[in-house]
Amino acid sequence: MSSTNLFMDTLALKPTPRRPIWVMRQAGRYLPEYREIRARYSFREMVQTVDLATEVTLQPVRRFGLDAAIIFSDILVLLEALGVPYRITENKGPVLDRAIRTEDDYASLSEAPVSDSLGYVYSALGILRQELPTDVALLGFAGAPWTLASYLIEGGSSTTGFPAIRALLETNPALFGKIMDRITEGVIDHLKNQLASGADAVQVFDSWAGMPTRDVFRQAARPYLQRIADALDGEYVIFYPKGAGHWLTKEEVHQFGILGVDWTHSLGYYREHFGPDVVLQGNLDPAILMTDAQTIRQEAWAVLDSHGPAPGHIFNLGHGITPDVPTDHMMALVDAVHEHSMETLQ
Amino acid sequence: MSSTNLFMDTLALKPTPRRPIWVMRQAGRYLPEYREIRARYSFREMVQTVDLATEVTLQPVRRFGLDAAIIFSDILVLLEALGVPYRITENKGPVLDRAIRTEDDYASLSEAPVSDSLGYVYSALGILRQELPTDVALLGFAGAPWTLASYLIEGGSSTTGFPAIRALLETNPALFGKIMDRITEGVIDHLKNQLASGADAVQVFDSWAGMPTRDVFRQAARPYLQRIADALDGEYVIFYPKGAGHWLTKEEVHQFGILGVDWTHSLGYYREHFGPDVVLQGNLDPAILMTDAQTIRQEAWAVLDSHGPAPGHIFNLGHGITPDVPTDHMMALVDAVHEHSMETLQ
Repeated sequence: MSSTNLFMDTLALKPTPRRPIWVMRQAGRYLPEYREIRARYSFREMVQTVDLATEVTLQPVRRFGLDAAIIFSDILVLLEALGVPYRITENKGPVLDRAIRTEDDYASLSEAPVSDSLGYVYSALGILRQELPTDVALLGFAGAPWTLASYLIEGGSSTTGFPAIRALLETNPALFGKIMDRITEGVIDHLKNQLASGADAVQVFDSWAGMPTRDVFRQAARPYLQRIADALDGEYVIFYPKGAGHWLTKEEVHQFGILGVDWTHSLGYYREHFGPDVVLQGNLDPAILMTDAQTIRQEAWAVLDSHGPAPGHIFNLGHGITPDVPTDHMMALVDAVHEHSMETLQ
Repeated sequence: MSSTNLFMDTLALKPTPRRPIWVMRQAGRYLPEYREIRARYSFREMVQTVDLATEVTLQPVRRFGLDAAIIFSDILVLLEALGVPYRITENKGPVLDRAIRTEDDYASLSEAPVSDSLGYVYSALGILRQELPTDVALLGFAGAPWTLASYLIEGGSSTTGFPAIRALLETNPALFGKIMDRITEGVIDHLKNQLASGADAVQVFDSWAGMPTRDVFRQAARPYLQRIADALDGEYVIFYPKGAGHWLTKEEVHQFGILGVDWTHSLGYYREHFGPDVVLQGNLDPAILMTDAQTIRQEAWAVLDSHGPAPGHIFNLGHGITPDVPTDHMMALVDAVHEHSMETLQ
């Protein structure tokens, strides 16, 4: 990888001529070229068909000149690889074929390594690493154990905060532990294979890290994250604990050293809390992309200024881009990030 | 009101022989006697029919001997009173008849005081205050302006964090302000009428207080809360800012002086942060009610112990009770709270 890769240089805390930018869910429904493919194939078909996943991953990079591509996939493919398929429903979020709440349920999970059935992800990454310019980083990802277990124990999404996992933790901590062990093993397997197949870095999405109490998070979620950190020592792992970044301790953040944050607290706040040796990724409020070019520029610059000129900031939204964002608004965002840094350097 | 009303004494920061308890959504689907009525009437009919709303409000108080009753209603009745009806869909949360995003939309809102069309709430409260024993407090409620405006501008619920309100705030702050003014006026009108009709205290639900950045909350949501606090000076107003309690300043909390908190931070943490003169309400993780009697007792006591013996704690869940909770688990919770205090007093 050449030293002009802004993304990788930022992960290494090196100074860069401008801030790198990518956007969560950048390969998604707001893109007409994505919708064109989506009209002909199901979400699952797109995820599992190497050519389609590859094409859709490349679309936003081509259109906007982003600094990273993230493999088009879903955190739930890992649960499918454990023997619990999912389907995406229109208004309700993902639904799993069944919930895993008893020893019998647990015994029904597949014992094969998850990587045995996720070859389509690794094939797509291999092709992508070939097709992408060397100055564009390639990202793999997985869900965090707590978040994946939240879906698995609940049996899908929840409108009441995924209570089943916290109930199981209390009533059968041994079974909770076994489920978390199995998932953690799967996450490590999946991330290692993605890195071996061409991913330059990986992101761990802990979407429901903000649901348990802080004590429960520390006792029941963190040790499994530590296991991932240990297994991937020397690799770049971005940890994105939605709704929880602001109450993590310095030690918890340094576990991975790269923290993706949502938009509710400022980057300046995070930088002050966690010191200069943590890489921060974020955190424009995705709602800003629904405004206009001038507001987008102003708010993007506010995020950049909040962080300040020190190295170690990857620009992103604080959450996924929404399907109704006009593509010229996304272009305005990319332009704003590019122009801010040029301005700064003058 | 007699001096043996544990709830009101606690609001006044007086010592009580045991901690008062009520539970958000206590009149709800987990109760067989509620489901029996719900099988025959729609949610709207139940809300708008005085006899039904009254009966359903009383059900959990009768069964569990709770220390407060909360009027069976919905925060969205206020938007309906402004001319924008809602319907509750099975999996998607509330949907409004239309979104309010332009000056024309705004002009279409009703100009009549909301209390003109919410008489059924006030009638039910009047009856309830007569029927309830004097040692049971009666609560009214309303949504906070930011939360109600989130629904109104979005046109219903949102799975992507209600981006429309934050976009409108940026692109048309004047219209945002007019909408917030109109809603705030309605909230004050509705709360005053509830208090005048028999409610001993009111709760302001700011369910989406955690969605904007802290700066946006301070600039765009807080001034309207202050207006409510000023208008209701001398009344008891419980402020429940879901997902935001932990980052409020002391000053923001003292605006109302009574803070309802979710379960993600401990009561001890809040008590330490906000000092002895704030009343705290909360905050057992609702998931615990899905476990078993022994765990419920242990975790309820942990909440009580986390707060400590000082006056000013109303026991509650950190969020609404979920529909799948067995009634004997709820009974175990009430027993645990009662017994803890007896134990403490021995």
